[in-house]
Amino acid sequence: MKFLIIGGDAAGMSAASKAKRYLPDIDVTVLEQSLDVSYSACGMPYNIADPDRDIEDLVVRSADTFINKNRIRLLTGLRAQSIDRQNRQVKGRSLDGQKFEESYDKLLIATGASPEIPDVPGADLDGILPLKSLDHGRRIKEWIARKGVRHSVIVGMGYIGLEMAEALRERDIQVEMIKPGPVFLPWMTRELADAVLMELETNGVTLHTGSAITGFEPDDGRITVKTGGSDLTTDMVVVGAGVKPNSLIAEQAGLDTSVAGAISVDASLRTSDPSIFAAGDCADAVHVVTGKKCWIPLALRANRAGWAVADILAGQDVTLQGVVGTAVFKLFDLQVARTGLSLKEAEEAGFDPVETVIRTRSRAHAHKGNTAIHVSMTGDRKSGRLLGVQMVGSEGVAHRINAPAVALHCAMTVEDFFQTDLAYAPPFGPVWDPLLTAANQLLKKL
Amino acid sequence: MKFLIIGGDAAGMSAASKAKRYLPDIDVTVLEQSLDVSYSACGMPYNIADPDRDIEDLVVRSADTFINKNRIRLLTGLRAQSIDRQNRQVKGRSLDGQKFEESYDKLLIATGASPEIPDVPGADLDGILPLKSLDHGRRIKEWIARKGVRHSVIVGMGYIGLEMAEALRERDIQVEMIKPGPVFLPWMTRELADAVLMELETNGVTLHTGSAITGFEPDDGRITVKTGGSDLTTDMVVVGAGVKPNSLIAEQAGLDTSVAGAISVDASLRTSDPSIFAAGDCADAVHVVTGKKCWIPLALRANRAGWAVADILAGQDVTLQGVVGTAVFKLFDLQVARTGLSLKEAEEAGFDPVETVIRTRSRAHAHKGNTAIHVSMTGDRKSGRLLGVQMVGSEGVAHRINAPAVALHCAMTVEDFFQTDLAYAPPFGPVWDPLLTAANQLLKKL
Repeated sequence: MKFLIIGGDAAGMSAASKAKRYLPDIDVTVLEQSLDVSYSACGMPYNIADPDRDIEDLVVRSADTFINKNRIRLLTGLRAQSIDRQNRQVKGRSLDGQKFEESYDKLLIATGASPEIPDVPGADLDGILPLKSLDHGRRIKEWIARKGVRHSVIVGMGYIGLEMAEALRERDIQVEMIKPGPVFLPWMTRELADAVLMELETNGVTLHTGSAITGFEPDDGRITVKTGGSDLTTDMVVVGAGVKPNSLIAEQAGLDTSVAGAISVDASLRTSDPSIFAAGDCADAVHVVTGKKCWIPLALRANRAGWAVADILAGQDVTLQGVVGTAVFKLFDLQVARTGLSLKEAEEAGFDPVETVIRTRSRAHAHKGNTAIHVSMTGDRKSGRLLGVQMVGSEGVAHRINAPAVALHCAMTVEDFFQTDLAYAPPFGPVWDPLLTAANQLLKKL
Repeated sequence: MKFLIIGGDAAGMSAASKAKRYLPDIDVTVLEQSLDVSYSACGMPYNIADPDRDIEDLVVRSADTFINKNRIRLLTGLRAQSIDRQNRQVKGRSLDGQKFEESYDKLLIATGASPEIPDVPGADLDGILPLKSLDHGRRIKEWIARKGVRHSVIVGMGYIGLEMAEALRERDIQVEMIKPGPVFLPWMTRELADAVLMELETNGVTLHTGSAITGFEPDDGRITVKTGGSDLTTDMVVVGAGVKPNSLIAEQAGLDTSVAGAISVDASLRTSDPSIFAAGDCADAVHVVTGKKCWIPLALRANRAGWAVADILAGQDVTLQGVVGTAVFKLFDLQVARTGLSLKEAEEAGFDPVETVIRTRSRAHAHKGNTAIHVSMTGDRKSGRLLGVQMVGSEGVAHRINAPAVALHCAMTVEDFFQTDLAYAPPFGPVWDPLLTAANQLLKKL
């Protein structure tokens, strides 16, 4: 059997490795348009923060290892352009323009996502740098070094933009962030978003919300960011304005797509063509809380979906239950985490939601080093179900979010969650864990 | 209505305060044998570690506040000695020997637990100091100051003993720990217990397991601990050799007791006499994983049970689901946590358990500051259920344990737990959370 994979990142290489491990005799071929495979994309901001670290440190396993040790036919520098479902063939071109075609018995589309670039004049200028692939990371690091960057503008205020703000401040580079939308972290409860905002300001980051970018212009070796209001002149523009699924090749082949144009897959990662799977940032998933399709492109799901495809090829009966939208990021001294739905998302999903927001302590009464923890918790009036949690604090947030994440998978009520036996010791929290205090407050509103 | 409470600690004062808040007109009387109420018992080791902190900092709310602000009839220095169920009366004596009696309509026994003191000659010598009540804490601090303690022996190697080892080492006091049993942390998987042992040794703590204490003798202002082998001479002996429920008063009144002699209660905290509740360290609970009675005296359960009694008096229909045995402690640079059953406990409870033990990293590949995390996970071959988790590591353990704790409340299978959408960001863990990696390994054995 020939198992062909388009895309050699998290989902693609997870599937390739596991398939080859289970089924040593099958032909596993991976087409990767870049020259990089298997690197920690999420680690890039932390690497960029440190001028003394080699960006190649982020490579988890080299192409050579996959080829020689895992015996995967890994073809880099080949861009897949079309899928001929009738003849089970993928066609495309190499980096130097040579045409190629590869046949398949089973195909996995793991093409990932691409950064959204503002559609304005000058967006292709040198020094306007997105961050998604390892090569983007290389270019940013190289640009900072070559230009001696002292000032930067970050377009977008999502996870990547915020992590890059911290990375650049660590290198003592001035940071201004800009986004067209009026609201900072719109998915987050105001009180919590304000705590995040304050952390940015404390660390010298300037924010321009509600500022549409109308163009970029070269300015004597620097770049001017043209906006509706004041222009910003800078040494470097980092674009972290969200991503879109690389689903065009699937769409053109007539495969179904769903939310945000992501490739539609069932619980076994099958597209509308049963010979074709899709996994990773290009594919959708079921949101366990809403029961509806969603597109939340994150690393764990990509790895898990890649593995699941390999399991299925090996004859296992695997169905993925879906995601609950758990995410965490670090921002200077803060940990910011969420799982499940925000109040607004819960309303849109047809729940009758109510939210409570509390501010409590990270450690027990009278224990040194106490800091604030903000918790927002949302539940459903009709069913009593827990719907979502958001947390912000200096400690004890990143891993604490996993408890309500598990509860969401179990469709737990707020009342049952309030009864859970969570860990207590004075250095790690109050007797009533912040999550239990939030649940108790929320119960009064349900 | 007269609501009488024996015991003014976590469970008793939680019940008293909440009952008075709900039902301002009832008479809430609390009999407390000591002069202290409402203090953070678990915070004592951390306070003792710091000579500059006042032990009174641990008081959360003063007796005056309860009496004057909450209008609770709080009677300290009164030791309840018997319950006359026929006449609904509690009898006892004050600290100065005066007899008293108090009637009740509803009674709550919240007498807590007492430290186990070795039953050997000399156990009542000055300088042999248990740690359970605030007054114990006062005495230890006062003894260290007065005697200029440079060397200590800790009897017992449980949570309290270990936390005290850290506290005394912080004050640069030499620590030797001794216990009669041959195994260090017998409830813990060996690989994890070894990591804890190494942390103790690294921090200069000497351990004597399998050393029975045969007596204590005064030795020129110091104390000699007589053992089967070499004797230990020291400035102070801290006794942290476990606790026993203060259930004698209940037993003598003919109330049912269960595991370890704890007072038997139903899910609404009622004893075998429907007018009498019991809550806190003196009472038992249902273990959610085994479905059987257990006695795991910890602070969260005490507070929760106290609140539940008040809720029930106020007419609410509250039933507590029970505990899953979640616990955490800090030991120098380590966090040590558990939830659910160990392999041995699972066998004893009639499961067909299997365990996996892994060692993984606390942060993503190539992220600075990576440390080891050890995870043990136990599941049931018959049902596939998750039964328990233990973790040891320098970071990311204390709050991570709450995710499997919630899963145990939901009777989740290991397979379903492996599918949960846990948080990922490079500073906080690998893409596959250590818990998911453990679950994946365990699945191969189930």
